[in-house]
Amino acid sequence: MKTEEEVEDFILNGHKHYLRHITIDCAIIGYHDQQLKILLVKWKHLNGWGLPGGFIMNEETLNEAANRILMEKTSLSDLFLQQFYTFGDSFFRLSKKDWDKDQRLLIPIPEDNWLLERTISIGYYAVVDFEKVSISPDIFYDEYQWCDIQSIPELLFDHNEMVEKAIQTIRLQIYHQPIGYNLLSEKFTLPEIHVLYETILGKQLDRRNFPKKLMSLGILKKLDEQRSIGPHRSPFLYEFDKENYEKALMEGIALAF
Amino acid sequence: MKTEEEVEDFILNGHKHYLRHITIDCAIIGYHDQQLKILLVKWKHLNGWGLPGGFIMNEETLNEAANRILMEKTSLSDLFLQQFYTFGDSFFRLSKKDWDKDQRLLIPIPEDNWLLERTISIGYYAVVDFEKVSISPDIFYDEYQWCDIQSIPELLFDHNEMVEKAIQTIRLQIYHQPIGYNLLSEKFTLPEIHVLYETILGKQLDRRNFPKKLMSLGILKKLDEQRSIGPHRSPFLYEFDKENYEKALMEGIALAF
Repeated sequence: MKTEEEVEDFILNGHKHYLRHITIDCAIIGYHDQQLKILLVKWKHLNGWGLPGGFIMNEETLNEAANRILMEKTSLSDLFLQQFYTFGDSFFRLSKKDWDKDQRLLIPIPEDNWLLERTISIGYYAVVDFEKVSISPDIFYDEYQWCDIQSIPELLFDHNEMVEKAIQTIRLQIYHQPIGYNLLSEKFTLPEIHVLYETILGKQLDRRNFPKKLMSLGILKKLDEQRSIGPHRSPFLYEFDKENYEKALMEGIALAF
Repeated sequence: MKTEEEVEDFILNGHKHYLRHITIDCAIIGYHDQQLKILLVKWKHLNGWGLPGGFIMNEETLNEAANRILMEKTSLSDLFLQQFYTFGDSFFRLSKKDWDKDQRLLIPIPEDNWLLERTISIGYYAVVDFEKVSISPDIFYDEYQWCDIQSIPELLFDHNEMVEKAIQTIRLQIYHQPIGYNLLSEKFTLPEIHVLYETILGKQLDRRNFPKKLMSLGILKKLDEQRSIGPHRSPFLYEFDKENYEKALMEGIALAF
């Protein structure tokens, strides 16, 4: 949605093209250099921060919808988006007053407009290197920020609950989902993946046990290749064994860190 | 819903009380004596088997809706129902022809009826001892059965996919959710929980390593109490340490079996 005419058409006629009552919201977790952040967007007419989200089209699968919504709202594409939970307990609704603050709609929003109904939201997450992506927000949003997950402000709707659940899910799935793929170079050293896991899990991991346990999961391959990082310092390189993730999941393998 | 008048009112006026487009379906997994089964119900006018499910009321939370639906459709109550995934890719819709097979509606179903729209379904699961519960199906269903998970027939809608995902989820969550609570007596022996885990995971677990690993999770408490099961045979009893489940989850603890 790029023009004001398109926004007006969405508000007045969107219910013909989108499913009522159901939205998708995206928790995009950013990692870089030992920092974990979350992508927040500022809603123009509500003057508050939240996650990028939108409605599902009549003829779209849920994954197609999640990818389209993220693309439209942030310009991010080709992410490994994973569904994590469906939220429907906040009963938050945008009121007629809230929508009427949006000056782009030249007539008042009708009382029975579809956007004033209760919505259930399906949460999707992805993890990206926030230094490597650029965001261009949709017409609905003023600004965006990568916010440190330690200092998330009060968000719109039930989005604080969503962020918390997304991070909890990533921490559980780190053992059997290829969450690290987009965050490390194709080949990396043990200290690099060690720091990544410590940052995501938000705690220190034993320096000697960590590589052993990770190797026993079978999702890392040690390469016959070293990186020279100084005199007498040339650690071995590793890569992810993508095929083994599925196997590890299927066998119910997970590890005690 | 018990009477035919209520069914007719649901079909014609349900959209005023329920959210369109969104249902909840329940995968009720039954365990008893080394068998794992799934509760299936037979839809009267479609002549096929599926999971019990229904629509969410306007003013209900998702958990309230899941519990009410399960109660109405099967008479099961007070289960530990957990949301596991939301399904929306099958595009299956009940057609006018399908609904018109339901002879209880004395007039043909209107072409634009809310029940003919695409639905997204939120899946919930629970695990019960199928010998300890009794089911009484709703007016929409003819019969029910506890079906062995090794021989599930072709189900209605996308319910085969739902059953598969539910079982996969239980196998992953067995390490950090109190899935065993309702399936074992309050106090149990190691062989009893060993067989339960083997049945749920669908594979043999090492007899010596299993108890060690389970104890290291911190979710079992060894009691100072033995059960006499024969001459010279009096194994120690154990119980679940409910508080530690949450802790184990939070710490990202899981185990490689």
